[in-house]
Amino acid sequence: NMSATTLKGQPLDKAVLDAMLRRRMFYTPSFEIYGGVGGLYDFGPPGCSLLTNITDIWRKHFILEEDMLEVDCTVLTPHEVLKTSGHVDKFADWMCKDPKNGEILRADHFVEAVLEARLKGDKEARGLKVEEKDDPKKKKKKAKSEAIKLDDALVKEYEEVLARIDNYGGPELGELIKKYDLRNPETGELPSDPVSFNLMFQTTIGPSSNSPGYLRPETAQGQFLNFAKLLEFNQGGMPFASASIGKSYRNEISPRAGLLRVREFLMAEIEHFVDPQGGKKHHRFPDVADVELVFLDRETQLAGKTETRKVAVGEAVKSGLVDNETLGYFLARIHLFLAKIGVDQSKLRFRQHMQNEMAHYAVDCWDAELLTSSGWIECVGCADRSAYDLNVHAKKTGAALVVRSRLDEPITIEEWEVDVEKKKFGPLFKKDAKTVEAALMASSQEDREKLAKELKDNGKATITVEGYGDGKAEIPSDAIRIEFRKRVEHTREFTPNVIEPSFGIGRILYALIEHNFWTRGSEGTDEARGVLSFPPPVAPTKVLIVPLSSNQSFKPHLKKLSQRLRSIGISSRVDDSSASIGKRYSRNDELGTPLGITIDFQTLQDNTFTLRDRDSTSQVRAEEDKIVEAIKSLVDSSKTWADIQKELPAFEGQEVDVAVREK
Amino acid sequence: NMSATTLKGQPLDKAVLDAMLRRRMFYTPSFEIYGGVGGLYDFGPPGCSLLTNITDIWRKHFILEEDMLEVDCTVLTPHEVLKTSGHVDKFADWMCKDPKNGEILRADHFVEAVLEARLKGDKEARGLKVEEKDDPKKKKKKAKSEAIKLDDALVKEYEEVLARIDNYGGPELGELIKKYDLRNPETGELPSDPVSFNLMFQTTIGPSSNSPGYLRPETAQGQFLNFAKLLEFNQGGMPFASASIGKSYRNEISPRAGLLRVREFLMAEIEHFVDPQGGKKHHRFPDVADVELVFLDRETQLAGKTETRKVAVGEAVKSGLVDNETLGYFLARIHLFLAKIGVDQSKLRFRQHMQNEMAHYAVDCWDAELLTSSGWIECVGCADRSAYDLNVHAKKTGAALVVRSRLDEPITIEEWEVDVEKKKFGPLFKKDAKTVEAALMASSQEDREKLAKELKDNGKATITVEGYGDGKAEIPSDAIRIEFRKRVEHTREFTPNVIEPSFGIGRILYALIEHNFWTRGSEGTDEARGVLSFPPPVAPTKVLIVPLSSNQSFKPHLKKLSQRLRSIGISSRVDDSSASIGKRYSRNDELGTPLGITIDFQTLQDNTFTLRDRDSTSQVRAEEDKIVEAIKSLVDSSKTWADIQKELPAFEGQEVDVAVREK
Repeated sequence: NMSATTLKGQPLDKAVLDAMLRRRMFYTPSFEIYGGVGGLYDFGPPGCSLLTNITDIWRKHFILEEDMLEVDCTVLTPHEVLKTSGHVDKFADWMCKDPKNGEILRADHFVEAVLEARLKGDKEARGLKVEEKDDPKKKKKKAKSEAIKLDDALVKEYEEVLARIDNYGGPELGELIKKYDLRNPETGELPSDPVSFNLMFQTTIGPSSNSPGYLRPETAQGQFLNFAKLLEFNQGGMPFASASIGKSYRNEISPRAGLLRVREFLMAEIEHFVDPQGGKKHHRFPDVADVELVFLDRETQLAGKTETRKVAVGEAVKSGLVDNETLGYFLARIHLFLAKIGVDQSKLRFRQHMQNEMAHYAVDCWDAELLTSSGWIECVGCADRSAYDLNVHAKKTGAALVVRSRLDEPITIEEWEVDVEKKKFGPLFKKDAKTVEAALMASSQEDREKLAKELKDNGKATITVEGYGDGKAEIPSDAIRIEFRKRVEHTREFTPNVIEPSFGIGRILYALIEHNFWTRGSEGTDEARGVLSFPPPVAPTKVLIVPLSSNQSFKPHLKKLSQRLRSIGISSRVDDSSASIGKRYSRNDELGTPLGITIDFQTLQDNTFTLRDRDSTSQVRAEEDKIVEAIKSLVDSSKTWADIQKELPAFEGQEVDVAVREK
Repeated sequence: NMSATTLKGQPLDKAVLDAMLRRRMFYTPSFEIYGGVGGLYDFGPPGCSLLTNITDIWRKHFILEEDMLEVDCTVLTPHEVLKTSGHVDKFADWMCKDPKNGEILRADHFVEAVLEARLKGDKEARGLKVEEKDDPKKKKKKAKSEAIKLDDALVKEYEEVLARIDNYGGPELGELIKKYDLRNPETGELPSDPVSFNLMFQTTIGPSSNSPGYLRPETAQGQFLNFAKLLEFNQGGMPFASASIGKSYRNEISPRAGLLRVREFLMAEIEHFVDPQGGKKHHRFPDVADVELVFLDRETQLAGKTETRKVAVGEAVKSGLVDNETLGYFLARIHLFLAKIGVDQSKLRFRQHMQNEMAHYAVDCWDAELLTSSGWIECVGCADRSAYDLNVHAKKTGAALVVRSRLDEPITIEEWEVDVEKKKFGPLFKKDAKTVEAALMASSQEDREKLAKELKDNGKATITVEGYGDGKAEIPSDAIRIEFRKRVEHTREFTPNVIEPSFGIGRILYALIEHNFWTRGSEGTDEARGVLSFPPPVAPTKVLIVPLSSNQSFKPHLKKLSQRLRSIGISSRVDDSSASIGKRYSRNDELGTPLGITIDFQTLQDNTFTLRDRDSTSQVRAEEDKIVEAIKSLVDSSKTWADIQKELPAFEGQEVDVAVREK
């Protein structure tokens, strides 16, 4: 099931595609003349245009269409923020080192690769058919297999280890390496014990060495920290969403899969803030309820299967397959976005995360996966993160990251309340006063009751404060007051939950290239010419303008036409090189340019042009105004090429003939 | 001359402006709930739209209009690249530390501030008028002055030191501090000796600790490294330009000036590659020759003056004021871009760099400076960098960063040529073979002649190779051959020169805000209401849609109208809050929204709307189609408000009245 296909169902020859992408400078290894750096790529002109067009469509589809609040936060992030979010402690992989050649191995990938190679060798020894396993999450280096039969019990053990591979920590991976004598195929050596390697790039902000910081691993944290300001900007209205397009960074241990696993990447993330009460409804859900999505749910995966089913999202939410309307709404919107930019619908599925795959606080999580020559690749994640992030930052800083909404009926509340006597409290804890106060304010009702008793009995109370001294703060009874009080509330205060659709733009871009790639035979030769059939709004350049020859009399037409197209916002390129028209069109088929205009001697007489369709190579001919009108309607997708063919007369001149005729 | 003014010539109250920008979330200190980090700012929704609109116009004005090749290179850059470019050694400031409070001071700013304060005190003591000096390059903390008269000779000495302040290195700054007993006004202490502080953020790429890297300080290097690929993509055509929009980083010692001196910033840079022979002509220069620019040339500055003169760029190149056509062409294009986005023409000048201000390899360099409340600020640099960057990278890597062009007449060349005997040479120098070979190939004719003699006399030759062993490589005569030969060349090979226009988008954005800000009185009150008169293409949101009240019958009109505007690519916002119409318009004046539509009870009867102009607050009324048509022509700048007023009937209803009428 790994054999990838082109847009037309041909087997996809990755080497041919890669050579073409390189030749046309879609992207290229960064710093190549210095030998390159793993996991870093530069985008050349067509890749850059693709990036711009995809993010532009994204911005219209999500931000403008839904009145989201766009923010642009810094990549540099101080230590404390990512300590609170959990990234400093948990955003890490386990790595080992080969003692002989110094190769650094990602421990889980290494164990997986060696065991899989052994199982494959066992199958070969048993004369069974070996099926390539598709691996949606990791692009690991494959170990070579030898046909050696294993004990039946050992096969079972290996299979169990592989099924649980995501659950092992470093020490357990180290034990597995020793227990099964897993040696690096490159050297025959046992790798070192796994050590934890944090995936964030670390740096220092400012000249003082005690201000550590990181390059953000996601854009989300900046959006959470601005929550209170965004709520105010939105004039208190709920629900609302913020959104951000920007680079994030992950210091991958050994990136190997081209654009699919890189160290610097463009993300587009939405944080939709919603009231956790009332079932997380979405007022535009009815608009998408009929959109059918291809689901691969948790239960199916638990049963070791990958069968998908197509269900309307309205039905999926109703049956509980998708947790709530807001999550379902975004899954449908993600689907519509991917369809709009030209993703092959037959190569798209929504895979639900397994329980152990999600963060402990997540309610539900789905990945939009796209099928590529590297298997199913997570390109968009869509998670319900509950109130986790706002809660941890509020707790740490004391900031009120909450919504206050007016109640229709006031309610009476009786509970333990804490008052801080600032004048005593401040001098007592000095620079830590805010931290200690935040811990007090975050204390539970049970804790407060106990503290009140302590204060009464001992004249002081001790509270646990993370990050303060030895973790305990002793507070005398004249610095705080804790009382059980009754009050009437006219407003409700709550911490919103967050639904987070998160897009890896580079991965989407790469999958889009594979989905739109195909080859066609060149007439009279065996050569297969590459074509990238991007939809016009996504295509890097919309129109290629080719003069029949370098004859000077064509120049004014070239200039006039490209200016006219530019004035209506349509990008064009002139190719007045000496190559044949066929060659010039070929080059632009590889660049994915959907339309081509030829200027020939007839143009000089009657101001008509031929217009060529990239996908069919068929042509029409008409005078300037009609050609420009046709281009406009094709680029804004209001018409198809078939429509244009009905409206304008066909032009039958062969591409190759045209080039020859003049000579 | 420092007193800044608003768009209408009112004195600019920076505190009022800052409060407004904060209230409307144009930008905000990053990580504020964690106490903030100096030099880091997040952009809120209107700031984000401004950024997007400015870069979008930039992309159209430069990249699309001139068929530039856009690239998007990584921010992460390995050590070796920035070592070669000179940044590792030279991209640094000198800093000292206050021994008492630990304050870190930028040494040149500190010396400058203390000496200026003394000179100011001297003037006060002499009863002279003290003029604030405008300081275009540095935003330093000002030291407080005391009225103490100085010796005439000392005044002269101080003035000479200040004139030369950019020429001092760290040791000299340290001597000045001791010699003049320059003490930190905060503590009365002498700061420590200056130490060099590199302004690049350092990190480690990958899990191995021996792969140091930096966050790029400019986007230029990535473009240079891709030169050969870009030239090929351009089918060998010269001249051509690459361009890049992306973030760069400078670890400022003590950032203090809001958006004007930040640690993370958006840049847009162009590298225009041109043949150094033939006077660096530009084929589109005649199109801009008549554009008049305001110049502050080198000679005027040397004479201690700041008088500018207005000269057509054609004239400026002819007279030699501007070095060459290509440089002049870009100065004019920069001017036109700044005018297009709404920069106040009376607050723009082009300042030429002093000789000692430019890098040693630069031929000429001009800054487009914008006048703000912090003085004249460099917002765009435009330098002729000669062939420096391509040369150093080619020399270091051995890559051919050159252009080969066919000669009309073949030429005969006689010169010393080096042949490397790969079979001997490779094993001899192993991993350094490429470095040694690159040094050989970069050797001059004189060097080669000497080496040939050495080889002949001693059977070996020694060559200087930076980065190899002790810097000397000894090569036996069987590993290379150096001969004086005659050959006929049909092509010319040259390293292009680079003209580099480099835009600081954040600085431009901030200056643009100041240039478009003004206040108007609110009728019947003393309150001055802020307005940001951005041109429509730049304005964050184009149209505000306000229903007269929250009456349900207005809803369908709101929805229909915003969808119709969206479908023609015009961003709008609905404000259906309960505030009065006047208040709602006020809020949007502060956000710079140029147009407002009111939906009232008459709309329900005849589908007419009022359209309000932000700048004049005057209104017209017409039916939907005409209103939408008017908006379209105002947003694409094809008509002015005066045109619309002639076409559509005025609406005289007072804003405040409108709000009152319904109650």
